[in-house]
Amino acid sequence: MSSKYDARAEVVRSLVCVGLDTDIHALPEAYQKEAMPQFAFNRWIIEQTHEYVAAYKLNTAFYEMCGEQGLRELKLTTDHLRSEHPDIFTICDAKRGDIGSTNDAYARAIFDGWGFDAVTLHPYVGREALEPFLARKDRVSIILCRTSNPGAGELQDLTVDKKPLWQVIAERVSQEWNANGNCMLVVGATYPEELRRVREIAGDMTLLVPGIGAQGGDAKATVTAALNRVGRGMIINSSRGIIFSESPREVARTLRDTINAYRQNLFFT
Amino acid sequence: MSSKYDARAEVVRSLVCVGLDTDIHALPEAYQKEAMPQFAFNRWIIEQTHEYVAAYKLNTAFYEMCGEQGLRELKLTTDHLRSEHPDIFTICDAKRGDIGSTNDAYARAIFDGWGFDAVTLHPYVGREALEPFLARKDRVSIILCRTSNPGAGELQDLTVDKKPLWQVIAERVSQEWNANGNCMLVVGATYPEELRRVREIAGDMTLLVPGIGAQGGDAKATVTAALNRVGRGMIINSSRGIIFSESPREVARTLRDTINAYRQNLFFT
Repeated sequence: MSSKYDARAEVVRSLVCVGLDTDIHALPEAYQKEAMPQFAFNRWIIEQTHEYVAAYKLNTAFYEMCGEQGLRELKLTTDHLRSEHPDIFTICDAKRGDIGSTNDAYARAIFDGWGFDAVTLHPYVGREALEPFLARKDRVSIILCRTSNPGAGELQDLTVDKKPLWQVIAERVSQEWNANGNCMLVVGATYPEELRRVREIAGDMTLLVPGIGAQGGDAKATVTAALNRVGRGMIINSSRGIIFSESPREVARTLRDTINAYRQNLFFT
Repeated sequence: MSSKYDARAEVVRSLVCVGLDTDIHALPEAYQKEAMPQFAFNRWIIEQTHEYVAAYKLNTAFYEMCGEQGLRELKLTTDHLRSEHPDIFTICDAKRGDIGSTNDAYARAIFDGWGFDAVTLHPYVGREALEPFLARKDRVSIILCRTSNPGAGELQDLTVDKKPLWQVIAERVSQEWNANGNCMLVVGATYPEELRRVREIAGDMTLLVPGIGAQGGDAKATVTAALNRVGRGMIINSSRGIIFSESPREVARTLRDTINAYRQNLFFT
């Protein structure tokens, strides 16, 4: 299923993912008056940006915050993406991770109910508990490795066997959990050194890289750190930096082009 | 806010929490025909069990699995609990854990939108990211420490500073994250030795203990391992073992009485 992402990235020559973190309180006034404000806004963002992006990522928090109405708008958004842009890779940024029987319910909600191609997951419960996600060969499990937040190191940098915990997780996922070839890892753009190291550990595995833009991640450092051997291997996400900008279309295009310029430098010079 | 739990536990002389893991596919046929099957079933379970319980725990997976309808029924359930049984402690077993700005949205959804007293959280992102939950002095943050699933040890037993990771998390939470006195820890009933050690580390902190019953946790071992100095300090949860039993009322009452017999033995002999 990561082949879906690769194919789209190839066709539109883009590693950009737009995060539809559609915070109802941050929407332009015109949208707040709509009957379906989050969906209407998302549809507009998709219309503005789709030709420059390989993936869309929806963070469930911003929809759950609006209760059942929010979930309706999330579903309308994924339905819209599947019917209008079936080749764009869709990520449910839910950061789930429960025990096995419960993960089975989450997998059904996220993959079958909402129809996402991928989901983000916490590693703490271990492989056994995540099996309902990992067993879905047709879907992608994206495991948190090094998150983009300032305090990520508190637990993720703890030393296990002379290595930081995030590195142990990168090893486990790439060497063991990825038996079905359907795993990816989350590594924040705010930590380019860690990105570089995860690339060494994880072979050509695709990395979901949040934290570009509003959170301070730098495009050049990110791209330089972690392209894989075919000049892809990253899903570079920007959320607020694109969707709440003056011109989402321009910002998305510029991000694509900036990333491509660095890719070009690395691969064709 | 853990005082709300303590007060209720005292009044009904019970440490029992009933997990409303209301899997739509597992409901008795009569309920499947209802317009609001999950809510109708929950209302019945609450009616049958409330006098024996100190807390109810709703796992979000089983409601999200039913999309917007599921969230409506979750909300009807929490509304019902707040109006009919305002003194019963309510836990949103959501196992969330995102970066800061996103956790702010989750906190609003869970504490304000749905009105829960407490939420379960993944520790991996660190204290800084969980601040939107921890800062809510009026609500309880319940941090995953040692989960109840068979494969919990894969990452949780990794050695950090000659200690297992779960122990480091118990220390951090009890010594640092609990500045507002509103933290609890999750430790599975399936791991009584770990329960005992967490009790030593965490002082009188209340522990949420899932895994009794269907998952194989033993009531005696659990109670013996981790009561605090006032004979409480545990929220002992059973979900499937109660709600899908022949007689939820009897099973809840028996669990309360069994637990109390061991409490009695430990405290009054």
